[in-house]
Amino acid sequence: MDKNLLIMTEMPEYFVSLADKNFNTYKLWLNKNEDDYLSEIRTDMDAIAVMGGYKITPELMKSMPNLKIIACYGVGYDAIDINYAKSLGIKVTNTPEVLNDEVADTAIALMLCVYKKIVDADSFARNNSWLNGDFPLTKKFSGTKLGIVGMGRIGKTIAKRAEAFDCKISYHSRNKKDVKYKYFTDLNQLAKEVDTLCVITPGGKETEKLINKEVLSSLGKNGVIINVARGSVIDQDELIYSLENNLILAAGLDVYTNEPNIPEKLINLKNTVLLPHIASGTVETRNAMGQLVFDNIKNYFENKSLISEVV
Amino acid sequence: MDKNLLIMTEMPEYFVSLADKNFNTYKLWLNKNEDDYLSEIRTDMDAIAVMGGYKITPELMKSMPNLKIIACYGVGYDAIDINYAKSLGIKVTNTPEVLNDEVADTAIALMLCVYKKIVDADSFARNNSWLNGDFPLTKKFSGTKLGIVGMGRIGKTIAKRAEAFDCKISYHSRNKKDVKYKYFTDLNQLAKEVDTLCVITPGGKETEKLINKEVLSSLGKNGVIINVARGSVIDQDELIYSLENNLILAAGLDVYTNEPNIPEKLINLKNTVLLPHIASGTVETRNAMGQLVFDNIKNYFENKSLISEVV
Repeated sequence: MDKNLLIMTEMPEYFVSLADKNFNTYKLWLNKNEDDYLSEIRTDMDAIAVMGGYKITPELMKSMPNLKIIACYGVGYDAIDINYAKSLGIKVTNTPEVLNDEVADTAIALMLCVYKKIVDADSFARNNSWLNGDFPLTKKFSGTKLGIVGMGRIGKTIAKRAEAFDCKISYHSRNKKDVKYKYFTDLNQLAKEVDTLCVITPGGKETEKLINKEVLSSLGKNGVIINVARGSVIDQDELIYSLENNLILAAGLDVYTNEPNIPEKLINLKNTVLLPHIASGTVETRNAMGQLVFDNIKNYFENKSLISEVV
Repeated sequence: MDKNLLIMTEMPEYFVSLADKNFNTYKLWLNKNEDDYLSEIRTDMDAIAVMGGYKITPELMKSMPNLKIIACYGVGYDAIDINYAKSLGIKVTNTPEVLNDEVADTAIALMLCVYKKIVDADSFARNNSWLNGDFPLTKKFSGTKLGIVGMGRIGKTIAKRAEAFDCKISYHSRNKKDVKYKYFTDLNQLAKEVDTLCVITPGGKETEKLINKEVLSSLGKNGVIINVARGSVIDQDELIYSLENNLILAAGLDVYTNEPNIPEKLINLKNTVLLPHIASGTVETRNAMGQLVFDNIKNYFENKSLISEVV
């Protein structure tokens, strides 16, 4: 297809290889001086492919007169000014659905690992500490009360998994959803009711520091927090303070405020399981995401309907 | 109650405290010379409480004329000669049911941790390796084919959890069970069909090295093995050989042949998650198990029916 595709950031091989075969690709990240390269080519670009968290500014969109579509790899599109894109008639797509299972798997893995201290237990076994006595007892996960913050596609998938662990599920979201779980309009009230609070809202301004000091205090000293959404949704400093002072029990985190930086204080805390944003990070799921980024761009230029246009 | 209870091994505080309040307790493990102590008291003992894996020999049973009941803490009673106990009219109880959830949670935790390399990912995050690039992609767990070896109470609970991860479940056991999952009379055939083989059979002679070289070879280089049963069920040397030579993909183990010893070779293998036999190791579950050990002994001497007599 004789279309020019700007790939802004390094992207998984599976996608890049598909793109190379079907478009004229321009790989920004391979250039030493990205600004110069961008200035040189931007007026000719028909499409952008980009990793989810990478910021596409209004200025950039404005400077690309032929730009028709921005295809994001990932479900979050909080780094793109959607309204501005709309105003220029630029389509924006993301990769929902294909990662629901994977993110839900990661959320449950974090819960089990936090409750059962699996990471510590593995190092206890490898250190041969077992020769000196048993690993301390931990805390039962199944049958606990799970509060899900954000009952979208992934939230529902987490709920489905957690039900099989006999968890009592309730949730908070902007609006009540058509699900059988108990709805809380008040996030603080939910936090008070549950053992675990699992955050899976969209990122962006609307949810910034939604999990603040008050919510953490409502969750209380036996409460566990899990974040597989965006680092921005939790007030990270307050979270660290709560963990350091045992105001909450523990945390399982896949995302952070300023990735890939994880604060030293968080790293030093024993009552955490820390993952480097791997929620969707399996070969199978990343290939499916890459395929969807590609299919959206291809469909656009073949005048077919977009598979996952951001509303 | 004026009955003499011999507690053979160190046991959880919750149980010991219940026992102290209700029986005359004799704590073998607190004595420097256990043999001398045993010789001195054994003819007076009415009951034994013991941790699951501890061997109660026919000789010992024979030397205790008043012994009426052996109450095991744990679901496995492979360390007791049941037929010999029967022949002497000694009742044997275990603690089934109350740990089904916990062991199933541990099995699923092991699967998720093996597939998604959670332990490595946590140390990657804590090492700040993330600053130099993303964690390598892993392997999707949900939707995989899971073969359960042993479709008893815990096997069924594992299956229930795994169904919520959209796993395709099949199983092998001595007899076909009244479950909807596909039954394999031939364990090798099951191993060939599945991605993950999860072992949850009873221990003892009948299942010794059930998972042998041939089964591991049938499982193949993309296969994962999970063991939450007994170390004896797997030929540990063959397992290590298979892992070292990538004849299977990975293993998640909670049990070993000669606990608490874990072979150095196993510890050095990157494609393993190793737990120090913590499958039932939470406060909630261990208290429930302790209560059941106590209730069985109490019921016996109050002429009530036993709650969980070993058949």
